Amino acid sequence: MSKINIGKKILSANEQYALQNSRLLADQKKLCLNVISSPGSGKTTILAKTITDLAGKLRIGVIEGDIQTDIDAQRIRQAGAPAIQINTNGACHLSAPQVSTALEHLPLDNLDMIFIENVGNLVCPTAFELGESFKIVVLSVAEGDDKPAKYPGIFAKSKVLLINKIDLLAHVDFDITKVEAESRRLNHGIQIFPISAKTGEGMNNWYDWLLKAAKQMA
Amino acid sequence: MSKINIGKKILSANEQYALQNSRLLADQKKLCLNVISSPGSGKTTILAKTITDLAGKLRIGVIEGDIQTDIDAQRIRQAGAPAIQINTNGACHLSAPQVSTALEHLPLDNLDMIFIENVGNLVCPTAFELGESFKIVVLSVAEGDDKPAKYPGIFAKSKVLLINKIDLLAHVDFDITKVEAESRRLNHGIQIFPISAKTGEGMNNWYDWLLKAAKQMA
Repeated sequence: MSKINIGKKILSANEQYALQNSRLLADQKKLCLNVISSPGSGKTTILAKTITDLAGKLRIGVIEGDIQTDIDAQRIRQAGAPAIQINTNGACHLSAPQVSTALEHLPLDNLDMIFIENVGNLVCPTAFELGESFKIVVLSVAEGDDKPAKYPGIFAKSKVLLINKIDLLAHVDFDITKVEAESRRLNHGIQIFPISAKTGEGMNNWYDWLLKAAKQMA
Repeated sequence: MSKINIGKKILSANEQYALQNSRLLADQKKLCLNVISSPGSGKTTILAKTITDLAGKLRIGVIEGDIQTDIDAQRIRQAGAPAIQINTNGACHLSAPQVSTALEHLPLDNLDMIFIENVGNLVCPTAFELGESFKIVVLSVAEGDDKPAKYPGIFAKSKVLLINKIDLLAHVDFDITKVEAESRRLNHGIQIFPISAKTGEGMNNWYDWLLKAAKQMA
């Protein structure tokens, strides 16, 4: 039997939608960040504080992915930003078609950038492109300093690592230097910001990066 | 077109292996607990401390599931128990065929019970039966008290909830009463033990349950 090489990658349905989302965001010149972490690392708290602290400087919209409930979207709206909740009904990650639908419902003309808060899961969301500009990984110091070694995929693919809950550093065994070194071994150019969304420590470094990234896109 | 109801559930490959594992464990009268949580909730620390503290009372073997590395299996062996490491190479949960192979390599005759430490993931492992006697869910207080509402599946299916890292309670916003009420709403009979594997607080209640459960199986 002869083999035909069609010489062209056939895109999955998810990849097709991701490409479509990516083109829409590029046309509209919007930065879009796909935020990925374990459950409970503080994604929503980081986004809510970022929205509040950058009010008047950066107009942010949020796509919230959760298995159930709209707890997170409510928190984002209370912080003052438009939020579209996607419930995955058991699925362990957001898909590009879901993000495509959510983008239709966000007031893009009035926004400078979009955060996608993925389902809390350090593994599966890594494998599904959504059309985002960059991935952001959040790691809480309470989760332990072996996580880059044990879950390398997301650390290798992210533009930024936010090491959150540094207010707990005195109470947990967590070696920031080890995490930074291991993350840079996986991903030479990764930007790393130790922060506490609770106390505000280190948040200004993250805001500087974010404002610059949004400006470069516009 | 006529429809034929074959009146019999066709088992998936995973379910077939799970059934086989379950029969093997029942024949050998071994308790087997499938431990599920987010990354960094403290599963390995709980198991290592349980192994050390119950030395001479309960002979424990461990099947370790990780995407990469054998860090956890090394920690378990240092605590004095036999451990079989399964690397899922990117997969987000353990499967019953993997557990079947691991069971062949554990010295079952010399063990009273087996822990399966699943891949750190609060979502996907919930859907894959491994042949275990019960599921155990671990939640660290650093993850926040909204987790039963947001990830109900595993709380609904577990026999025991270990609320870990209670030594951090003074430093985080976590309402234990809310978590207990929400977990019992999802799962009336769930056993809940607030513990700190770090300080040892509350561990005796967990050990009492575990020794009793292993005895009932033998």
